[in-house]
Amino acid sequence: MLKLYDLAGAEEDRRFSPYCWRIRMALAHKGLEVETIPWRFTEKDVIAFTGQGRVPVLVDGERWINDSWAIANYLEATYPDRPSLFGGPSGAALTRFHVGWADTVLNAAMVKLVLLDIFNHVHPKDRDYFRKSREERYGRTLEDIVADRDRGVLAFRESLLALRQTLKAQSFFGGESPLYADYAIFGGFQWCRCTSPFQLLLTDDPVYLWRGRMLDLFDGLAAKAKGYPV
Amino acid sequence: MLKLYDLAGAEEDRRFSPYCWRIRMALAHKGLEVETIPWRFTEKDVIAFTGQGRVPVLVDGERWINDSWAIANYLEATYPDRPSLFGGPSGAALTRFHVGWADTVLNAAMVKLVLLDIFNHVHPKDRDYFRKSREERYGRTLEDIVADRDRGVLAFRESLLALRQTLKAQSFFGGESPLYADYAIFGGFQWCRCTSPFQLLLTDDPVYLWRGRMLDLFDGLAAKAKGYPV
Repeated sequence: MLKLYDLAGAEEDRRFSPYCWRIRMALAHKGLEVETIPWRFTEKDVIAFTGQGRVPVLVDGERWINDSWAIANYLEATYPDRPSLFGGPSGAALTRFHVGWADTVLNAAMVKLVLLDIFNHVHPKDRDYFRKSREERYGRTLEDIVADRDRGVLAFRESLLALRQTLKAQSFFGGESPLYADYAIFGGFQWCRCTSPFQLLLTDDPVYLWRGRMLDLFDGLAAKAKGYPV
Repeated sequence: MLKLYDLAGAEEDRRFSPYCWRIRMALAHKGLEVETIPWRFTEKDVIAFTGQGRVPVLVDGERWINDSWAIANYLEATYPDRPSLFGGPSGAALTRFHVGWADTVLNAAMVKLVLLDIFNHVHPKDRDYFRKSREERYGRTLEDIVADRDRGVLAFRESLLALRQTLKAQSFFGGESPLYADYAIFGGFQWCRCTSPFQLLLTDDPVYLWRGRMLDLFDGLAAKAKGYPV
């Protein structure tokens, strides 16, 4: 069976990496079973065989792949008879923009709303590493970063206009059914849901309604995950 | 031959609508010749047969279609043996996000940099209409809207991170060659190029280099258009 090194928090069943969630959803889309292996930020030695220190890492028999985009492309190439993640080569190229937007805009904005909540859920052995690395990256304390989030969330909601515009016209970014583009964007929302009680979206937002459809996919794979029902 | 009602400025050959440019490029992609008909904002009566007042309007024999997205889909459905604009049904669905982002983020940001330059190029008979409608929409004078553009352009360049991320990995949003997603995004850049000498992009920006590739397509269709060589 496939194995996935999957970021976990203090509780082994709190799985909150946005990039791992992309792959959890992609594997379910392909109908592939996977054994997930809980992994913490400081367990660099456990995945040292990949020559780098981040998850997701997928192990498929003798092969391993790291980086969510590389994994998605590996799954598409290796399991071509399963439902496509991209809807063809052009779809794969087009999906890079959804991924790029999620990486640089969506997740970057979310982190400023929930970073302290994430910190409160990381494993005790990861806490010093997490605080130090994030505070260096952002040049502020975790507490400072999220201090203004009640106002920040208003700008965050505004920044989702392109999502909203798309979802007014169709149920998923992939059209009538989801594709990897949906999982790339959803990963960030699930990251927040698994770590934070903070309400990101208003419940009449088309983005919220889409998120609900995503939570329900694959027998509620994401809905059943440990998190906050917001 | 196909006919396209195409927004023109004071000079008949200054064609600057971002939405018309999407269709000019899409028609060239399909290898379809078109006669463009210069149209000004206040010539609502000329396109009254469409029941609305905006271009692009495409006339194909007895049929007409308005709205750039509807036209692109019409071309794809009507000329399926020509090169695809979307790379398949999934590609069409995925492209909606590029279009939505260009409409709500890109073009909305650009207008705050070049709106006064656009005004200076509209036909004299359109000037009152243009100023009044835009100043009502934005709640400020045209002069006010662009007053801080030397600073605004820095934030604008930052806002292109998702484009840049994608274009570091591939030549076009469509992959190795352009698709409608490219034309949707390019329309805004061409809108600015045709009306404004203001430098939007630094010349070492991957987005600038992509724009150069777009300008060169179809024997320099966009490069040869009346505008500013910025």
